[in-house]
Amino acid sequence: MTQTTGAPPVGEADGPKHRAIFFFGEGRADGSSSFRDLLGGKGAGLAEMTNAGVPVPPGFTITTGVCRWYYENGSQLPPGFDQEQSAALGRLERLMGRRLGDDADPLLVSVRSGAKFSMPGMMDTILNLGLNDRSVAGLSRRTGNPRFAWDCYRRFIQMFGSVVMGLEKRESEEKVEALKHRRRVLTDSELTAKDLEGLADEFKTLMRRRAGRDFPQRPMDQLAMARDAVFQSWNNDRAIYYRRQNGIPDHLGTAVNVQAMVFGNLGETSATGVGFTRNPATGENHFYGEFLTNAQGEDVVAGVRTPRPIEELRDVSPRAYQQLRDITARLEKHYRDVQDFEFTIEEGRLFLLQTRNGKRTAQAAVRIAVEMAGEGLITRDEAVMRVEPASLDQLLHPRLDPKAKLPVIATGLAASPGAAVGRAVFDADVAAERGKKEPVILVRKETTPDDIHGMDAARGILTATGGMTSHAAVVARGMGKPCVSGASSVRVDDRARTFTVDRATVREGDWISIDGSSGAVMLGRAPTLPAEVSGEFGTFMKWADAARRLKVRANADIPRDAKQARAFGAEGIGLCRTEHMFFAEDRLPHVVQMILAAPEAKALESRLAAAEAQAAAPGARAEAKREVAALKRRLAGPMRHYRDALAKLLPLQRADFRGLFETMDGYPVTIRTLDPPLHEFLPKREELMSQVAVMRADWQRARRRSKKAAKPARLARAEHLLERVEELHEFNPMLGHRGCRLGITYPAITEMQARAIFEAACAVAKKGVKVIPEIMIPLVGHVNELRDQAAIVRRVATEVMSRQGVEVEYRVGTMIEVPRAAITAGEVAGEAQFFSFGTNDLTQLTFGFSRDDAGKFLPEYVDKKVLPSDPFVTLDAAGVGALVEWAVERGRRSRPGLKVGICGEHGGDPATVEFCHRAALDYVSCSPFRVPIARLAAAQAALRGRASGSDQR
Amino acid sequence: MTQTTGAPPVGEADGPKHRAIFFFGEGRADGSSSFRDLLGGKGAGLAEMTNAGVPVPPGFTITTGVCRWYYENGSQLPPGFDQEQSAALGRLERLMGRRLGDDADPLLVSVRSGAKFSMPGMMDTILNLGLNDRSVAGLSRRTGNPRFAWDCYRRFIQMFGSVVMGLEKRESEEKVEALKHRRRVLTDSELTAKDLEGLADEFKTLMRRRAGRDFPQRPMDQLAMARDAVFQSWNNDRAIYYRRQNGIPDHLGTAVNVQAMVFGNLGETSATGVGFTRNPATGENHFYGEFLTNAQGEDVVAGVRTPRPIEELRDVSPRAYQQLRDITARLEKHYRDVQDFEFTIEEGRLFLLQTRNGKRTAQAAVRIAVEMAGEGLITRDEAVMRVEPASLDQLLHPRLDPKAKLPVIATGLAASPGAAVGRAVFDADVAAERGKKEPVILVRKETTPDDIHGMDAARGILTATGGMTSHAAVVARGMGKPCVSGASSVRVDDRARTFTVDRATVREGDWISIDGSSGAVMLGRAPTLPAEVSGEFGTFMKWADAARRLKVRANADIPRDAKQARAFGAEGIGLCRTEHMFFAEDRLPHVVQMILAAPEAKALESRLAAAEAQAAAPGARAEAKREVAALKRRLAGPMRHYRDALAKLLPLQRADFRGLFETMDGYPVTIRTLDPPLHEFLPKREELMSQVAVMRADWQRARRRSKKAAKPARLARAEHLLERVEELHEFNPMLGHRGCRLGITYPAITEMQARAIFEAACAVAKKGVKVIPEIMIPLVGHVNELRDQAAIVRRVATEVMSRQGVEVEYRVGTMIEVPRAAITAGEVAGEAQFFSFGTNDLTQLTFGFSRDDAGKFLPEYVDKKVLPSDPFVTLDAAGVGALVEWAVERGRRSRPGLKVGICGEHGGDPATVEFCHRAALDYVSCSPFRVPIARLAAAQAALRGRASGSDQR
Repeated sequence: MTQTTGAPPVGEADGPKHRAIFFFGEGRADGSSSFRDLLGGKGAGLAEMTNAGVPVPPGFTITTGVCRWYYENGSQLPPGFDQEQSAALGRLERLMGRRLGDDADPLLVSVRSGAKFSMPGMMDTILNLGLNDRSVAGLSRRTGNPRFAWDCYRRFIQMFGSVVMGLEKRESEEKVEALKHRRRVLTDSELTAKDLEGLADEFKTLMRRRAGRDFPQRPMDQLAMARDAVFQSWNNDRAIYYRRQNGIPDHLGTAVNVQAMVFGNLGETSATGVGFTRNPATGENHFYGEFLTNAQGEDVVAGVRTPRPIEELRDVSPRAYQQLRDITARLEKHYRDVQDFEFTIEEGRLFLLQTRNGKRTAQAAVRIAVEMAGEGLITRDEAVMRVEPASLDQLLHPRLDPKAKLPVIATGLAASPGAAVGRAVFDADVAAERGKKEPVILVRKETTPDDIHGMDAARGILTATGGMTSHAAVVARGMGKPCVSGASSVRVDDRARTFTVDRATVREGDWISIDGSSGAVMLGRAPTLPAEVSGEFGTFMKWADAARRLKVRANADIPRDAKQARAFGAEGIGLCRTEHMFFAEDRLPHVVQMILAAPEAKALESRLAAAEAQAAAPGARAEAKREVAALKRRLAGPMRHYRDALAKLLPLQRADFRGLFETMDGYPVTIRTLDPPLHEFLPKREELMSQVAVMRADWQRARRRSKKAAKPARLARAEHLLERVEELHEFNPMLGHRGCRLGITYPAITEMQARAIFEAACAVAKKGVKVIPEIMIPLVGHVNELRDQAAIVRRVATEVMSRQGVEVEYRVGTMIEVPRAAITAGEVAGEAQFFSFGTNDLTQLTFGFSRDDAGKFLPEYVDKKVLPSDPFVTLDAAGVGALVEWAVERGRRSRPGLKVGICGEHGGDPATVEFCHRAALDYVSCSPFRVPIARLAAAQAALRGRASGSDQR
Repeated sequence: MTQTTGAPPVGEADGPKHRAIFFFGEGRADGSSSFRDLLGGKGAGLAEMTNAGVPVPPGFTITTGVCRWYYENGSQLPPGFDQEQSAALGRLERLMGRRLGDDADPLLVSVRSGAKFSMPGMMDTILNLGLNDRSVAGLSRRTGNPRFAWDCYRRFIQMFGSVVMGLEKRESEEKVEALKHRRRVLTDSELTAKDLEGLADEFKTLMRRRAGRDFPQRPMDQLAMARDAVFQSWNNDRAIYYRRQNGIPDHLGTAVNVQAMVFGNLGETSATGVGFTRNPATGENHFYGEFLTNAQGEDVVAGVRTPRPIEELRDVSPRAYQQLRDITARLEKHYRDVQDFEFTIEEGRLFLLQTRNGKRTAQAAVRIAVEMAGEGLITRDEAVMRVEPASLDQLLHPRLDPKAKLPVIATGLAASPGAAVGRAVFDADVAAERGKKEPVILVRKETTPDDIHGMDAARGILTATGGMTSHAAVVARGMGKPCVSGASSVRVDDRARTFTVDRATVREGDWISIDGSSGAVMLGRAPTLPAEVSGEFGTFMKWADAARRLKVRANADIPRDAKQARAFGAEGIGLCRTEHMFFAEDRLPHVVQMILAAPEAKALESRLAAAEAQAAAPGARAEAKREVAALKRRLAGPMRHYRDALAKLLPLQRADFRGLFETMDGYPVTIRTLDPPLHEFLPKREELMSQVAVMRADWQRARRRSKKAAKPARLARAEHLLERVEELHEFNPMLGHRGCRLGITYPAITEMQARAIFEAACAVAKKGVKVIPEIMIPLVGHVNELRDQAAIVRRVATEVMSRQGVEVEYRVGTMIEVPRAAITAGEVAGEAQFFSFGTNDLTQLTFGFSRDDAGKFLPEYVDKKVLPSDPFVTLDAAGVGALVEWAVERGRRSRPGLKVGICGEHGGDPATVEFCHRAALDYVSCSPFRVPIARLAAAQAALRGRASGSDQR
């Protein structure tokens, strides 16, 4: 269920701030829905309904201000509060014609919490407050219904015990069960007044024993204790946890609603129920709800009796049913949104107890928004504002069946949404193999680019370390594959092929389920539901598209992803990471060959150049010339290997690019030249080291037996490879020899990639496809780096196009991901035809956080509020965002009309999309599965901008 | 020798830019010393001397503009050049009364290069140009000295052959030697005219054979070829290399000086010599030089004959000697600097051929500057400007004896100056042990904090990888210890305890020498000279101090370094890295204990907190309470280990701080809280992995023999340690869990350090020492991080001071080293009482360069001019500097008077010091051995600022 985005929250009303209590009743209320900050959602709703003439039992709301005062003043109440409460209570008593604590005809009230935002986990409701050992008899006499009176009383004691006195509800429930067992009845309603009186006594005894104090007989004490319990429940663990999860500020506090009781348990013409004006799961426009006769509110949700569908209310009380339909329809019109309401019918008379905008699934939100716009209830722009962008995720991935009841053994980060069920495997190769035959989930401490084939074959990915933008998370989101990352209680043992959580051990082949939308890891096979996109979704997205200014592109590396992106409405590719193409099985050997040969070829080449210069200088010695010849001989091998490898990669890359260009006909395709450090393509250093260590120990043992034991060829090969790997090893690969630094050291690689791009572009253009390649040079920090690489690209472009006889429109630009590039954006824009902010790396460098390592402290940072949120999820506007704004401003000053986008993972985060809109970027680019989210977020940003006047269409 | 910083270089004179040739002679010259850009140093000096009435043989200078035109126009000369040259030559011929190429009485000229900055490596001089087979006879007849004529001719052919025709000088020298051998004479001067004529023929034959062409007989051809050879020599390898080393722009070009010959080889009343007005090695104010009679210029430096001390010239030609003294004294006054001159005496008549400001050692530069100021020749401020700050290094470290002639087997970066001689060792432990008994040089692929004790024991450090700010380089400079880093041709084999360079192998115990001032690595024991600080040094530094505004502090971690820093004039400690104290032998075990216990204690603690909250909540189950008890039991062990370790470190740190405070009595001491990632204190992951792999293989083998073989305890321990190391392992430690992130995760560490600081400060303050502790929180990116840590520090400070009954003035501030801190400096300054720019990390993060890995591409970047210089040596003003300026401006706007310094390695770089002066920083902090350099650089920056009017005293 999703919190809808209704009208923008109002600030605290300027008016009667000093008032502690707002009264409502008899068609007039002190407050209204605009007092939500002060009255909470429930109190504001009650006031608004009262004003609207809806039958609401009268009462009063103690404001959130009192709660804040209570917390700031050591659990004291503000001066004058008691008098104000007495006055309100007096007014209520006069209105109801009964007095609280009156022995003969007591006024009973309910006490409920009500914060600004609805919060499960807080103390909810106490009913029937005001009863005691004496007044229960009065109530019995007045109503002539002893069973009713005792039922009210035992319920009150039971609720008071658990909510106010901290008793376990289980114990009192056990007593009820035991009694029913003794009486041989099935339901509470079969218990007699005598039975219930006995229960009340039992509860009081239990309270004395467990809480060490008697049940309070004075109604004013009951009220004070219930009120304080509501205040205190604001800061219980579950409430705090909920607020943290939902970004609700801790200082708001809760209001307390004290309201005259009406009784749904006065017999068979009384009832209580809840409902929605439309179906909150599907969005269908039909009256939806359920009720129980002769019951009080809690019974409907408690599951003790099975409630009846609301249509049957027509049979029970046709007048009340029609009245309820009329009133709730009015309320929906009044609030211009689906209403979630509670009602009670007391002997045929209807009372509304609560109304609020109904939470709903994403699917329902979309349908409701579209239909309400169709009905003219809201405008299309309002409809666009009604759906939380992030919730669209639910429409795009299979999801966990909410009825699933599997044990959750661990919780990690909800890194890539959707549910996955499969057999646990611990190795990418196993995943690739086994994944062909049955569903598998790849479980790793952390994934690396080596694992791509295993991730591709797996239904989902689970990692023990790494954050929301770790390798596993990023790749999984790119693949649209569920992922739970950073499940820190999971200890992976690669050798044993198991993982353990506390004492539980999961072995290879065991079934597990993960929910990438919640971060849950479960044992066994959880039931899932397939993705459903109802017909209104398309309409809704069209309206969103009409509202937005920002373009939305996708990050896609291969044609399959590009097709998916187009299907989700991407308007081009904002980032194609060419290196992802390098990991494919048919390419990796060539890549490895290139890497092994390149440094040696390079080193010999520069020695050769120096030797040649020396040999050419006046007075050169003969040795210099001999050196030149020797170097040329030595260079031949590595150079051939290097060039051969590149030559083999060229046609493969060209074919990839052709596929992308064809798919993106008419849209720009931004292709980034090779970015990762070369060692990522080689075997892992640590594994090689251990292998070599073991092989060396073996060989030494062999030599102790026989001096002549030769070094095994396997060892020699492994040592050679290890030597290369060591040469390429880096202390901080993130800050090492990668990005354009590679292209500058090995210009032949850039040249090969540029050639593949332009050969593909020309070939496709000849077939009538409109290609717009944008070549993006990564990791530029100084304009000279871009200049160096752009020169290669332009040279190759000119050469290829003239040979092919085709002119292709292209741009050369850069990824702004190094702070220095942002700082010197004016200079960089002199050379760059576009900027694309690589906000992943820009965030890493601006904060000095490694996203692969930040899992060690970032969760604690967010928890301790050192940072407001994970900067790898939502762009840090004050720091990284300031750099972005600076760079946009300087870049456009130096090159008016400079095209600027963002291609980090942030591109799919709604808050970041809003930032990008405000920062006047031209587009955002995100993973294909987030394209619809970004489109909607862009639309909402534009609508909000227009509403606030900071923006014009 | 050092290039002095004279008057600021003048721009090209506005006047006769279009002129290709400037004439000088007869007391009047077209140019003057202000035409240095156009005439080169030599040409400008000749013009200036001519104008000053100094006897200079007349001639003309072909401008650097012609050279540039020559390069830009495919080796052509500008239109009209030939006419201009003819005119100048004609004027020279008229003045001398002789014609070039006249058979009977030929005019002979010298042709010399002369660039704006003196450049060894370029073609230097051709003498006697104009002679040919016919005019040699004429010269012989005219002078009546056939030997002289043939001597001139054979010299000319020899020089022309080697300089213009590219012949090897060795071959012609061999012919001279062979002839002397045949004639049984020792010196050239004993050869007869006939001998020399034969030699001339031999040289011509040689030229024909080697160069494939005849010696040119036409003087105008000779002149054209010589001139073009000068132009071409501008771009030979050695010249390019020299320019790169000295930061001389490539586009300047060289001038060519054509000057009438005067002859020092006309007999015993003729002579030629060179000299300095003061001693360029020591600075002593005495006439200094040497000469040869009956010789031409090159003989003095060629070493064929041993020249005589210049005082003896008095005996040869008293009048010429006195005239030389008078003229050079006048020249020194005229140029207001030491002059390096060349002269020739032709039959008793003196000619000056060149004068220029003399290069000198740092020692000489200081003495000369001080003495000239004493003589009133220059002001004190001018004296301060006369010494290159970086050159002071020579005065502070032992240096290589310039006479050392050992084979240089490799060259790395001149990472920490001074020479070191010792036995090669490959392991820090071996270095520590062996270093007690004999000098050792620690050779490592790269050093790590583990190696500190070995570095401490070694005379010098040599590494194969790593740049100017690699661990080895930084620590070595901090220790004032010579270091050559990144000697990439050195391949270290730790196991074999050898290193190899090409085919040479150096074994443990072999003697090697390194020169940290040049980067040279030599086999064997090079002679060194001890540091000499002459008395003038103190005076000089006092004058510098009077001129500067910037304060200069030192980076010092231990009292010994702090004492050194004070001795060099540091005004406080700008950076004390507390972790360096952790590596000491008596502390490391406690640190390891703390690290092993901390994460577990931490994890259990947070689980305990959660469990306690659950147990306390209403309706808590009994299990929750049992869980609390269980966790408390589990926590006891790790928590005790953690707290015990901290308790043991406290008194040790306190003692360190006491020492620092006492040494820095009256000066501020900036202490940085723990910064490096914890794994730096543990054994190396790779080593452990290999050990475990081998032990596991052994155990498996044992199990194959006997199923019952138990896992060896050693293996179990190693596995446990490895598990911890793995938990702490980071992909990018630079961006990982370090700096204040540690303090936030483990507040007890910050608390212990703060306690140690304030307990030490109070104790020392009670003894009357003035302590000004400045606690610096590292790696802050968000103001909240600083807020968290500052709160701990302030709380501990208050508590300790109140307990001790002493008030100590202290400040809490932050290191600005994360770009985000600079960007949000306004907010950060709200919390920080000072900023200290950690420009090492700020440069790393702003560029995205890891200084440990940048060695793979940074040299090529500088070489290819992608970057103007290594940004780890000189602060990148455009990028990193822009961040610094922004942060200073924002910081001071938010907190007026905010104290701002810099404590990166850049603090000792003169160009960076100048930047810091301009950026209005309060101080720079650098390693102790660079303090005098920074003081001088700060003075020069202030003087330049005042001169340019951008600055006021």
